[in-house]
Amino acid sequence: MQAKGFVRTIEIDRPSLSDNTADAGRLEQSLKKELCADKISIPLHILKKLPSNLRSWNFKAKAVLFKTQSSWIVLELLDTLLDISVLGAAIDIGSTRIVISLIDLETGQEIGEQGFDNPQAVIGPDILTRIHYSNHDEGLAELNRLVIDAVNWNMSKLCKEHGVQTKDIYLVTAAGNTAMTHLFLGIESFEIIKEPYIPCVNIPDTLAADSLNLDINQNGVAFLFPNIGSYFGGDLIAGILFSNLDQKEDICLMVDVGTNAEIVVGSRDFLIACAGAAGPALEGGVSKMGMTAKPGVIDKVWIDPETNDLKIHTIDGKKPIGICGSGMIDLAAGLFLSKRIDIRGKFSKAICKEQLFEQDGIMSFTLVDENQSATGEPICLSQVDLNSLTSSKAAMFTILEVIVCNTAGLTFKDLHKFYVAGTFGSFINPGSAISIGMLPDIPLDTFEVLGNSSLGGAKVLLTNPDAFERVVEIRKSITYIELNVNQEFMNMFSGAKFYPHTDISRFPSLQNKIEADKRLLNIG
Amino acid sequence: MQAKGFVRTIEIDRPSLSDNTADAGRLEQSLKKELCADKISIPLHILKKLPSNLRSWNFKAKAVLFKTQSSWIVLELLDTLLDISVLGAAIDIGSTRIVISLIDLETGQEIGEQGFDNPQAVIGPDILTRIHYSNHDEGLAELNRLVIDAVNWNMSKLCKEHGVQTKDIYLVTAAGNTAMTHLFLGIESFEIIKEPYIPCVNIPDTLAADSLNLDINQNGVAFLFPNIGSYFGGDLIAGILFSNLDQKEDICLMVDVGTNAEIVVGSRDFLIACAGAAGPALEGGVSKMGMTAKPGVIDKVWIDPETNDLKIHTIDGKKPIGICGSGMIDLAAGLFLSKRIDIRGKFSKAICKEQLFEQDGIMSFTLVDENQSATGEPICLSQVDLNSLTSSKAAMFTILEVIVCNTAGLTFKDLHKFYVAGTFGSFINPGSAISIGMLPDIPLDTFEVLGNSSLGGAKVLLTNPDAFERVVEIRKSITYIELNVNQEFMNMFSGAKFYPHTDISRFPSLQNKIEADKRLLNIG
Repeated sequence: MQAKGFVRTIEIDRPSLSDNTADAGRLEQSLKKELCADKISIPLHILKKLPSNLRSWNFKAKAVLFKTQSSWIVLELLDTLLDISVLGAAIDIGSTRIVISLIDLETGQEIGEQGFDNPQAVIGPDILTRIHYSNHDEGLAELNRLVIDAVNWNMSKLCKEHGVQTKDIYLVTAAGNTAMTHLFLGIESFEIIKEPYIPCVNIPDTLAADSLNLDINQNGVAFLFPNIGSYFGGDLIAGILFSNLDQKEDICLMVDVGTNAEIVVGSRDFLIACAGAAGPALEGGVSKMGMTAKPGVIDKVWIDPETNDLKIHTIDGKKPIGICGSGMIDLAAGLFLSKRIDIRGKFSKAICKEQLFEQDGIMSFTLVDENQSATGEPICLSQVDLNSLTSSKAAMFTILEVIVCNTAGLTFKDLHKFYVAGTFGSFINPGSAISIGMLPDIPLDTFEVLGNSSLGGAKVLLTNPDAFERVVEIRKSITYIELNVNQEFMNMFSGAKFYPHTDISRFPSLQNKIEADKRLLNIG
Repeated sequence: MQAKGFVRTIEIDRPSLSDNTADAGRLEQSLKKELCADKISIPLHILKKLPSNLRSWNFKAKAVLFKTQSSWIVLELLDTLLDISVLGAAIDIGSTRIVISLIDLETGQEIGEQGFDNPQAVIGPDILTRIHYSNHDEGLAELNRLVIDAVNWNMSKLCKEHGVQTKDIYLVTAAGNTAMTHLFLGIESFEIIKEPYIPCVNIPDTLAADSLNLDINQNGVAFLFPNIGSYFGGDLIAGILFSNLDQKEDICLMVDVGTNAEIVVGSRDFLIACAGAAGPALEGGVSKMGMTAKPGVIDKVWIDPETNDLKIHTIDGKKPIGICGSGMIDLAAGLFLSKRIDIRGKFSKAICKEQLFEQDGIMSFTLVDENQSATGEPICLSQVDLNSLTSSKAAMFTILEVIVCNTAGLTFKDLHKFYVAGTFGSFINPGSAISIGMLPDIPLDTFEVLGNSSLGGAKVLLTNPDAFERVVEIRKSITYIELNVNQEFMNMFSGAKFYPHTDISRFPSLQNKIEADKRLLNIG
């Protein structure tokens, strides 16, 4: 039960001959006191019946509020005797999946959550395709309609399931990447993907929900988290809010491992951010490895300490059908730690033995043979797949090193916490990621999984009025670093393509192992 | 041709890899520089097509702007190559008559003006009747619809006559008294006329024209001048703006002689205001004397210096049908200066002779006999009519004295200018008003007629962006004095009921004359 959210019960001073302040001024005074605010905005729809309402409600009212850039706005004024829900909806506008959380604004409690696939996928699975589509004819309107209709349909479903009404939703907070935010607002997005990569808007105002065609209360408003630029979106600002990175005494890092890798390092004193999309090294992306998690997908791989065999775990324990991203990282770690691949990321015939085969001149490793696979086909990892994973893990490490060491002038040991955001990140085993040199070799308890931090941040904003100022401050204070893919970066990247790295001193927990391998290969 | 209005042609910096500010941020920067402003608000409808518009317009645009309480708002962004009018409408929302002035916002020039009767008169001629009506069933909605429909119809007519379109009107500024402002906004007004006389709102925000059902550009806005309280409305704030009272080095006074007398005295250093409606002495009002000005109405009366007869002038030189308020003041002055009434305002049989007659015990003075009247009836002034005028003129003088002398601690001689606002005031002959002791005995060239200062102020706000800040400042800085009708007021009022006053030293220009009369009547 929260004390001070966006719903406040207030008492208004009664007028008299010695105090003939207007009713609106009277309401404003009460709210200023209650909110410790400078400026209150009372829209026309509330003014219209304010005199008779105040008098019939005995000068008591329940105010539904929101904080905008310049003032607090009164969204609704209700009779304190009425038993009406006052709701808010937090939305994570993912390009793949959208999640809505319905919150009781009076108690701050979550009423329910609803996830669904982003229907814009019918236009194209990736953002680039969608933005290209948005640039033709009615493409933008269609993409906008797809997402808004789906949000409306699912909000309505969620409300029905919990016996509440969409008209009682007064507030929507939504976080998405820059492109998704533009498409949600129906704003032209084409320049985002074209050099010099210019978003239309970074700080959308608080908007009338009606102007976005959101089916909530007709006087409701929507707030979209601001972006830093084309490649650092509101979802990450929401993540910073959710992780409290901006309030930490000690330096922490947050990484969102999605199609791009977006990283923020900092504390209450500074915030430095960068996004991986700037570098061609990340093309394809870390999370594109493997298939989407579903029953039968291999999500964990480990070495049997007795046999040195690779063991697998599938989602729901079903017969394996393939492997997902986090499984791939486990697999690479297992291959490396069992010496099935060497420090260059090449398969070792001597160790792999019959699990290795060659097809069209490319070596492949059989993880699951056709007899144990659900598809009747073996589940294999080719050298090409492995090289792609190697590039991705190297890019991730290089970006981390660029921002933490080269830019912020820190070492990884200075990181008090290493937050992993995003759905994909939630499943990564940090131990495996360290083993392959994707994440830095810091104590395992430094790593913390945030889950859907974009949704989490949107929820914080719905329930904590102080969060608005923090969002504005985070947006203002972030130093965004353009990843400069120059010779220095490429040199660092080359080193990071080894397992775990050419410079073994960066991975002390693996050092002994690597020294041995190095002697074997006459490197370093 | 004004240099800097609400329409500005701006150039926007082009984006580059080294400056990837969002398009909205880029537009904001340009406007901040152009306007020397802190905060610019760019609404969604402009953002939606901003990227392609900026690029196809070669990063040049014509911005239509307005200043709101907290920021500048971009109402529209236009291609500089398009030849489109950008218009504003200033409205004086009088309870009797409404006047619309159509302004070209680019040049600041008036395109045309249209006056029409306030159609709310079908509900009732006076504000009290209308507000009572607004309190029943759909009364408020009907009164609101009447005024808005009439404004829309007349704006459209005005536009057609001048070959422009209502959709090119982006800005409406309107000034009216507190009740008219509430009815224009469709806000409950009943508490305005009920003790303790509480308006719903004194400072309406800038509103979407759409939310007021004004048929202008769909993204246009409307600004209603703020009120001080129930009896000091936006029309007077507009008047102060128009007269520049708030910027005067020397102390000036503005009086709006309407149903009430509203007075402001001050300079750039202070503003003190009061309104006559607080005192029962003003009941009936100064302007209610006589009939509305129209052809045949006596608007001027003077003494023939040779014959000492009273001469009349009628509007359009038609045969007389009655007398209007300004004619009444002239008549009273003529009666007094010709000694037909004494200093107590009583008819003198000795001087009036056969022009005076008695009916039902009440003396009446025949100004025009039945042969010269257009109606076949004589035009007379009864002692009852005269007493009513005496009360009104005494109330006006007392209020002036209370605010100028008792409250501001000045003398009338300190007034650099005495502005007379309002339609009724425009026709008053200051010499006559001084002669009867209605206005103070100060040099005639001190008086200046402002005309429709409410419309004038609304026009200033349309054409001069600096005016907005002045309106806010005027609203904030006015000290509003409740007219306290106590024993002291009643004593002053009693003295002011004489012609011109019991204390003749206050009217030095009439002193000789009065001394003679006093001796005659043994007063003083």
